[in-house]
Amino acid sequence: MFLDKEYLFTPGPTPIPNRVNVAMSKPMIGHRSAAFPVLLEDVSTRLQPIFGSANPVCIISGSGTGALEAAAVNTIEPGDDVVVIVGGAFGDRFAKICEAHGANVHRLQVELGKACQPEQLEDFIKSADKNFKAVFATYCETSTAVIHPIKELGEVTKRVSDALFIVDGVSCIGGVPADMAGWNIDILVSGSQKALMLPPGLAFVAVNDHAKDVIKNNKSNRFFFDLNRYFDAYDQKRSTPFTPAVSLIYGAQEVCQMIEEEGLENVIKRHDLLKTMTREGVRALDIPLLTSDEIASPTVTAVKPEGGNANEMRKMMLDQFRISLAGGQQQLSGEIFRIGHMGYCTPYDVLTVLSALEMTVKAMEGRDVLGLATRRAQEVWAEHV
Amino acid sequence: MFLDKEYLFTPGPTPIPNRVNVAMSKPMIGHRSAAFPVLLEDVSTRLQPIFGSANPVCIISGSGTGALEAAAVNTIEPGDDVVVIVGGAFGDRFAKICEAHGANVHRLQVELGKACQPEQLEDFIKSADKNFKAVFATYCETSTAVIHPIKELGEVTKRVSDALFIVDGVSCIGGVPADMAGWNIDILVSGSQKALMLPPGLAFVAVNDHAKDVIKNNKSNRFFFDLNRYFDAYDQKRSTPFTPAVSLIYGAQEVCQMIEEEGLENVIKRHDLLKTMTREGVRALDIPLLTSDEIASPTVTAVKPEGGNANEMRKMMLDQFRISLAGGQQQLSGEIFRIGHMGYCTPYDVLTVLSALEMTVKAMEGRDVLGLATRRAQEVWAEHV
Repeated sequence: MFLDKEYLFTPGPTPIPNRVNVAMSKPMIGHRSAAFPVLLEDVSTRLQPIFGSANPVCIISGSGTGALEAAAVNTIEPGDDVVVIVGGAFGDRFAKICEAHGANVHRLQVELGKACQPEQLEDFIKSADKNFKAVFATYCETSTAVIHPIKELGEVTKRVSDALFIVDGVSCIGGVPADMAGWNIDILVSGSQKALMLPPGLAFVAVNDHAKDVIKNNKSNRFFFDLNRYFDAYDQKRSTPFTPAVSLIYGAQEVCQMIEEEGLENVIKRHDLLKTMTREGVRALDIPLLTSDEIASPTVTAVKPEGGNANEMRKMMLDQFRISLAGGQQQLSGEIFRIGHMGYCTPYDVLTVLSALEMTVKAMEGRDVLGLATRRAQEVWAEHV
Repeated sequence: MFLDKEYLFTPGPTPIPNRVNVAMSKPMIGHRSAAFPVLLEDVSTRLQPIFGSANPVCIISGSGTGALEAAAVNTIEPGDDVVVIVGGAFGDRFAKICEAHGANVHRLQVELGKACQPEQLEDFIKSADKNFKAVFATYCETSTAVIHPIKELGEVTKRVSDALFIVDGVSCIGGVPADMAGWNIDILVSGSQKALMLPPGLAFVAVNDHAKDVIKNNKSNRFFFDLNRYFDAYDQKRSTPFTPAVSLIYGAQEVCQMIEEEGLENVIKRHDLLKTMTREGVRALDIPLLTSDEIASPTVTAVKPEGGNANEMRKMMLDQFRISLAGGQQQLSGEIFRIGHMGYCTPYDVLTVLSALEMTVKAMEGRDVLGLATRRAQEVWAEHV
């Protein structure tokens, strides 16, 4: 259908800026050459403010799930008791990873579309009366488009336990604030293909000194994801223990450049604007949202059309209007569709997706809503200028 | 120094063809879109002849070491006895991976620069008198530029044991023949950044049906590298269990196209020619090679200058003549340098590296050898036309 312009609004992968593609096309270099340590140190340190990390960010070749596994397998040992906050598919994945490595997983189940309240976590930890090794949380639960109150959950974790606080930031880091020290986060992980504007293939792991000590003494079976090997290679030679994904790291360097040029604070403000434009636009069409405003993610919005025709709407958006959205996962399958608005995304992109949604509503329901959502989103934008 | 042309002759990463860069710059697609299964099936099946595999090749986001770990952690369990043929740094890595996962590793140590003889393996297995779960072998030991007789080692493994035969093909697959069924290979793994002309970041794992059965029943702790998850996702939806490195897979599709256009047999012949040109050229300069002809790799050549000035020569090649080579690893550090000639490499590239070597010899030793190596390599080329 018309040209080859792609309208990718999935919450990962996300569109790649052309200058990032160009950077990734640089001539290949050997990872044992003099150029590589310079590149690695540059990127690892420029990622620090994005992760709010006091230490350079560790870069692993792999997907975001690899980063989750690295966080788990380096900290827990078989038989350890851990808390996993499960508010959707990715909390569930964290739990499954911990189970796969032999932990006794205590699932703090959160209603889908809701955030974990700090009191919930406090009660859960206190009533379990275990010596928890770690609390695993999800910053943005991609499957429900919910932002969990990480700062407050970190405060509780440290006040009522000695557990590590380990956070999955895959679908939001780069579009939201992060402050590991201020928020008591010991490990914060992310992937490349979300707000960080890269193709999938890099896993990022930011680790504070306390977690580094724990990791040093951890005895679990691991090799590729053994973070001690990454720390040693970085400290000794600004290198990686295994062949790094050089082209993607060149891309990450360009992403750091772009974020610095826009200014990290402005990037975060832009994501907030994209969220509000999207939500207000959808509301202007009288279509319900899954989540309330206070816990809505700046990077992805979950739409819950009445009558459960989420999949039909998504299908029409794709087939007739060439807009790629994501469906619901697990129990939310067919109940919601999700609009990703992160990374290489501008207010015009939100107007684009909303205009397609208007046309879809008109075609499916006969309601003439053309212009309503985009107009409301423009108003929001104008207020923010 | 002059322009930005890169002369990368390391045995991985290797130069990337421009058309592969272009393919990797295609607009990003969602991995749950309709387009992705088509892409994944296309690449997984077109890799089959390159791996000599009866089954589609499993594609994991990660480095070659990730592929080695996937092969190990899916087949062995803590306490299992395994044989690892160790003829250099990468055999050693396979052994360390198996140890990290709790196996009792029996190292069949092979002299550096030599290949493991089938009789050696036979004696080793028989005299150990263990019920070995697997024999791990390295097809091309990158650190010594030796090709091990995989077909013969596979024959022995199956004749005198019930072990799986698991082969590291990282630094040669795509430049050498492979026949999993004919050579009794149960699992053959490789990485993207060697003869397969891609940036680092993809791990390939080809598995036969027998190994699939073993993997299905394996109980080791694993998640990201759990091959059952990959088999299930592929069988059910032509998908991957975790976000795939889409851009690299687009690149792999273009690589398959290039190999098919040249013809896999011609690709293999080309690598053989590159090897012979390189070796004959070096010999024409009276510089010794580490390995004998019968076991010399078609993808990488190890040069062992007398007087142990390998590092000096390599440094001059880089600093004065802009040629990136690799040094020796572990005990061979300072003893050898290695010339990679695989993937996106033509006979002209060999003439390039040899011309630099001539100038280096003249500058360091005062011997006027200009033209000697390239002339001999041209003769070899002419004989093969």
